[in-house]
Amino acid sequence: MKVLVINCGSSSLKYDVFEMETEKSLARGLIDAIGSSHANLTHRIASGTEAKIALPADTDHEGGVKRLVEALCGRGEAGAKTGPVISSPDEIDAVGHRVVHGGERLTEPAVIDKEVLQIVTDNNELAPLHNPVNLMGIYAAQHVLPKAMHVAVLDTAFHSSMGPAMKHYPIPYDWHAKYRIYRYGFHGNSHQYVSEEGARFLAKPPEQTAFVTCHLGNGCTIAAVKAGRTYDISMGFTPLEGLMMGTRSGSIDAAIVPFLVQNKGLSMEEVFTSLQKKSGLLGVSGKSNDMRRVQEAADAGDTRCQLAIEMFVNRCKMWIGGLLAEMGRADAVIFTGGIGQFAKAIRQRVCKNLDHMGIVLDEQANQAATGKSIECISASSSPVKILVISTNEELVIARGAAKLAGKAD
Amino acid sequence: MKVLVINCGSSSLKYDVFEMETEKSLARGLIDAIGSSHANLTHRIASGTEAKIALPADTDHEGGVKRLVEALCGRGEAGAKTGPVISSPDEIDAVGHRVVHGGERLTEPAVIDKEVLQIVTDNNELAPLHNPVNLMGIYAAQHVLPKAMHVAVLDTAFHSSMGPAMKHYPIPYDWHAKYRIYRYGFHGNSHQYVSEEGARFLAKPPEQTAFVTCHLGNGCTIAAVKAGRTYDISMGFTPLEGLMMGTRSGSIDAAIVPFLVQNKGLSMEEVFTSLQKKSGLLGVSGKSNDMRRVQEAADAGDTRCQLAIEMFVNRCKMWIGGLLAEMGRADAVIFTGGIGQFAKAIRQRVCKNLDHMGIVLDEQANQAATGKSIECISASSSPVKILVISTNEELVIARGAAKLAGKAD
Repeated sequence: MKVLVINCGSSSLKYDVFEMETEKSLARGLIDAIGSSHANLTHRIASGTEAKIALPADTDHEGGVKRLVEALCGRGEAGAKTGPVISSPDEIDAVGHRVVHGGERLTEPAVIDKEVLQIVTDNNELAPLHNPVNLMGIYAAQHVLPKAMHVAVLDTAFHSSMGPAMKHYPIPYDWHAKYRIYRYGFHGNSHQYVSEEGARFLAKPPEQTAFVTCHLGNGCTIAAVKAGRTYDISMGFTPLEGLMMGTRSGSIDAAIVPFLVQNKGLSMEEVFTSLQKKSGLLGVSGKSNDMRRVQEAADAGDTRCQLAIEMFVNRCKMWIGGLLAEMGRADAVIFTGGIGQFAKAIRQRVCKNLDHMGIVLDEQANQAATGKSIECISASSSPVKILVISTNEELVIARGAAKLAGKAD
Repeated sequence: MKVLVINCGSSSLKYDVFEMETEKSLARGLIDAIGSSHANLTHRIASGTEAKIALPADTDHEGGVKRLVEALCGRGEAGAKTGPVISSPDEIDAVGHRVVHGGERLTEPAVIDKEVLQIVTDNNELAPLHNPVNLMGIYAAQHVLPKAMHVAVLDTAFHSSMGPAMKHYPIPYDWHAKYRIYRYGFHGNSHQYVSEEGARFLAKPPEQTAFVTCHLGNGCTIAAVKAGRTYDISMGFTPLEGLMMGTRSGSIDAAIVPFLVQNKGLSMEEVFTSLQKKSGLLGVSGKSNDMRRVQEAADAGDTRCQLAIEMFVNRCKMWIGGLLAEMGRADAVIFTGGIGQFAKAIRQRVCKNLDHMGIVLDEQANQAATGKSIECISASSSPVKILVISTNEELVIARGAAKLAGKAD
């Protein structure tokens, strides 16, 4: 069975094609700058051969999907360069769509039908930056690949296991059902992947494991995963909550919002947009939302970049310790995501002085880790292991789609 | 030296008179329902003799202070019942005023002069519910006791030791200085008192101690106190942040505020007031902001009260674990405040399954604790001790005032 995975953004579309028997990726790529005059497609097949081509000006999402399917079949400018990985579009049995917000009702992968489309649409208000563009990707792919089964795989689904005490906020109780304000959590596919890989690495059945999984990328979440499902997570109602991120503040005193609006004359839009796009690493450092840039400048003596990193590290420590206190002892702390996999200095600082919680880093192993597989970087004496795992959200989405497509056969 | 301590609310005024040589309270009391037709004074001297009297309708703060000074001198209706504890108002050498918000500039107790009054007034915007009424208390007491030295003792001062990474939020950097948005912290006098008492109990110099101090009352804060000063604290810019409290939500996803205003048509005032006054234990339980009432109903099977308690406990665990991860190993976790000192079931649940962090409760000692002195309730094997300490913010305020009055002699 072959599954195409689509992760659709407002002006970009990432894709990956899996052969499910081996779970190997056959090809993957990115369509970028959609809707602009410099729309382009980068297509790379498993062997490493890559084609990067310009697309006609104002290529839309549907046009983009057509081009990527063409490339997969070895046709068109890109396909001619890389050769085919499938012989016909009909070979794609299923398309797994990353959908960010499943809300209360979509708690596992779902075959996309009218009802599911309606639910995803109803969730637009909960994820206005994500769900509407996810829907654009679904419509585009349904047009281009009408014979495939289309499956929505939710970023929130893995967390639907959270108990009532984690799903609710300490707000007026009726706000939950009335306004749909719950703690949903995000990055579920990543937390699922690394916790499953962690269990495999420890050779334990997932039901007997407990992990603190740190997905640190441009968006950041730390989850407590117990018995194979989320126990609690740092991000709740929206992607603003929790850790300090590339451009997002994470958890702050909510009173800052009315203070700025009522006392300082800022508009609600300005405050909200600033917390989403001008805060986090970017806001504090004044330099970049990219940890690599911030780290470089900090190393060169920039005090605001040093401050940004110290704050980022502190907040990671807080959530790791907090979730460990809430969940109880863990088998391992797992690092993943761009920062989690590759920022050795951040891992080193986050894990420093946590021996009283049973977490002891092997700094040599930390430095040696490639971030490209599964690596153990804790000291052999460490009661809690520290793992670095290369995440693969696309494979989780492909598995979710394949499972439903398999049932339908 | 005798010091009068005043803690002034909008319609109440608590006071306490200390003989500083012994640090014993000579008398204390409460003026309640100020400005209403049922204003009253409860006055109690050290021996336990108490007088409760009605005050003339519409007694204001100054009138209240006059009555309490009268009572201290053994005059008036209350004083006649209890007898004098001082012979003349002139015996009061200093008045220590609890002032909630010191902002960036008042970082230790300060003799109240024009400049200090201006700073406290400038901080009204940071603590609109507290600083203006604190000022009313100051003006009233200055009129009644013009010869005494008046000293402002700040709820924020003890936390001014926090480093830049704890004082800043991950928000646009220029918001800090421009709008005075910093993490200030509150309940400083309580955290100072119990951490000093903790050091004394452990017979260690404060500089060599590290504590996690849990002030759990109607307002709740947990602080990491290292080497005798605050390292970090759950409450930052305003008293809304951090733990779940009696009526306050504590930390939530800040995006909830714009969501309710922009998408659901609630007014900013409604949202903000609800987060302050209709959230926390009250909001979730629907029953009460008082943990005793919530616990009773939970024990009787009320599921929302059970949920409220579970959420409260989880958030305490999160902050204890989080601050322990951030600060490093602690000598003790200290419980204080109405809930911290007296809610045995809460302490038991908060400390449960924290052995992997070196925290092991002795449940028998926990049940036996009175909450009225200093009690150790951890197992003898527990690497981190658990202490229950009866707080005494008034004494910290009296000490702060006495120190400055002593210097002026």
